[in-house]
Amino acid sequence: MNNNSLITKQATQRLALAVEYDGSQFSGWQIQKNARSVQHVVQQALSTVANHEVVVSCAGRTDAGVHALSQIVHFDTSAQRSLRSWVYGTNANLPKEVCIQWAHPVDAEFHARFSAQRRQYRYVIFNRAVRPTFLANKVTWCYHDLDESLMAEAAHCLLGKHDFSSYRAIGCQAKSPIRTLHRLSVCRYDQFITLDLEANGFLHHMVRNIAGVLMDIGAGKAPVSWAQEVLEHKNRTLGGVTAQPYGLYFVGVRYPDKYQFPKLSLSTLGLPLVATL
Amino acid sequence: MNNNSLITKQATQRLALAVEYDGSQFSGWQIQKNARSVQHVVQQALSTVANHEVVVSCAGRTDAGVHALSQIVHFDTSAQRSLRSWVYGTNANLPKEVCIQWAHPVDAEFHARFSAQRRQYRYVIFNRAVRPTFLANKVTWCYHDLDESLMAEAAHCLLGKHDFSSYRAIGCQAKSPIRTLHRLSVCRYDQFITLDLEANGFLHHMVRNIAGVLMDIGAGKAPVSWAQEVLEHKNRTLGGVTAQPYGLYFVGVRYPDKYQFPKLSLSTLGLPLVATL
Repeated sequence: MNNNSLITKQATQRLALAVEYDGSQFSGWQIQKNARSVQHVVQQALSTVANHEVVVSCAGRTDAGVHALSQIVHFDTSAQRSLRSWVYGTNANLPKEVCIQWAHPVDAEFHARFSAQRRQYRYVIFNRAVRPTFLANKVTWCYHDLDESLMAEAAHCLLGKHDFSSYRAIGCQAKSPIRTLHRLSVCRYDQFITLDLEANGFLHHMVRNIAGVLMDIGAGKAPVSWAQEVLEHKNRTLGGVTAQPYGLYFVGVRYPDKYQFPKLSLSTLGLPLVATL
Repeated sequence: MNNNSLITKQATQRLALAVEYDGSQFSGWQIQKNARSVQHVVQQALSTVANHEVVVSCAGRTDAGVHALSQIVHFDTSAQRSLRSWVYGTNANLPKEVCIQWAHPVDAEFHARFSAQRRQYRYVIFNRAVRPTFLANKVTWCYHDLDESLMAEAAHCLLGKHDFSSYRAIGCQAKSPIRTLHRLSVCRYDQFITLDLEANGFLHHMVRNIAGVLMDIGAGKAPVSWAQEVLEHKNRTLGGVTAQPYGLYFVGVRYPDKYQFPKLSLSTLGLPLVATL
């Protein structure tokens, strides 16, 4: 190793960022030809601040229309900037639908995807007779009355380690359909029903396919036992419809404690709920 | 009066509607030349359903960017339609930023503006260091830390019957600057601060001018006593800045009990708040 490469190596730093975005304005996270991706605008903004080309890796790719409160990415840079500059400088170069919430230094072993231990999603259903206006593209609208207690009962069988083949997209590229679902809570807040999910990882369309089955059960179109039956088929073609992307939020990622990332508040998700004036 | 006019008179019915809208896509409620107004799209949709020209009167005009959960309007029609048809038929003809929540028959004395006893507004401030993404245009962003207890203390002096000249827009056309403010609550929910206001009526920009003064006090730019000083000047030019329209929601209207309008849930305003995963 000569002196030059030693200097270069010392000067390269790995950083993690938390990225929030409104997915309704994008074709999804991943860079695609002829489509507007979140990854592209984030890389462009970081490259401007770094003054060299930046490539980012994310914790979990999201589809078109899916939002994120705290998508985690990492990238390597030789630029010397304060953490504050990485946040505010990058935000100044991002479109209004995307922002960086924090930047944090990490060691060279950290990888946004492979270091992740658990991922968290929330699915928000807006359950009223007439369609949303200012919440359009922020919630999944369901005009049927949904019985959230049936949905919660049906959700129970999906907890734990299972073969989720029936709940993955046909084109899903994951090597194994086995995932461990640590949490699947169904709550109603007046006109809203939320599904909160936490797993070691999610297959392609897994949350939306679970939401599709639970919404049909909540609407009385299928019995509670159907969620288990679908699971046991291990066959996507015998599953339910894929629910809309608009109500889906990638909430966050759990990493080993040693990284000490800032904690985010889930309240970012919404405006305050107050029952009465 | 001949028979024809008698028949016409009997067949004319007055209806009240609750209208929800995302104001960020409009130049305001009122019809203007060369600008997109909520009133225009509502009248167009109702005229299609009625098969005759419909003109509506509203409870309170809103400015560009201001949203409504329950703007109340009334109109007269000779068309015979079910209440369900007025709601769903009109919604089918409205753009996605506007919907009718309910339709209710009223007597010929009812007037959306003049029968109103009290009006309710909510102002939502999003108080965090980095700008909003999916809540852009739905909240007013403030990156300074705001002390909501100072804001609440300052708000107190505005309650009751006062000359609100310092808090009205220069061009406000109301005959009198006297209004009675029955409620002005300041609450914090994590990163959100809400102002809930109820008055017999509001002057032009009154809520946004109150919000501007309270936000400056919350940021420590002015003492708590400033809200009272501004009030006593009775002079708009000595007031504070007019806060942005995006966080302002026209929440509802109180009418005499005899009209028995459906009660709306304020939770429509937002996605659920949950502190922790």
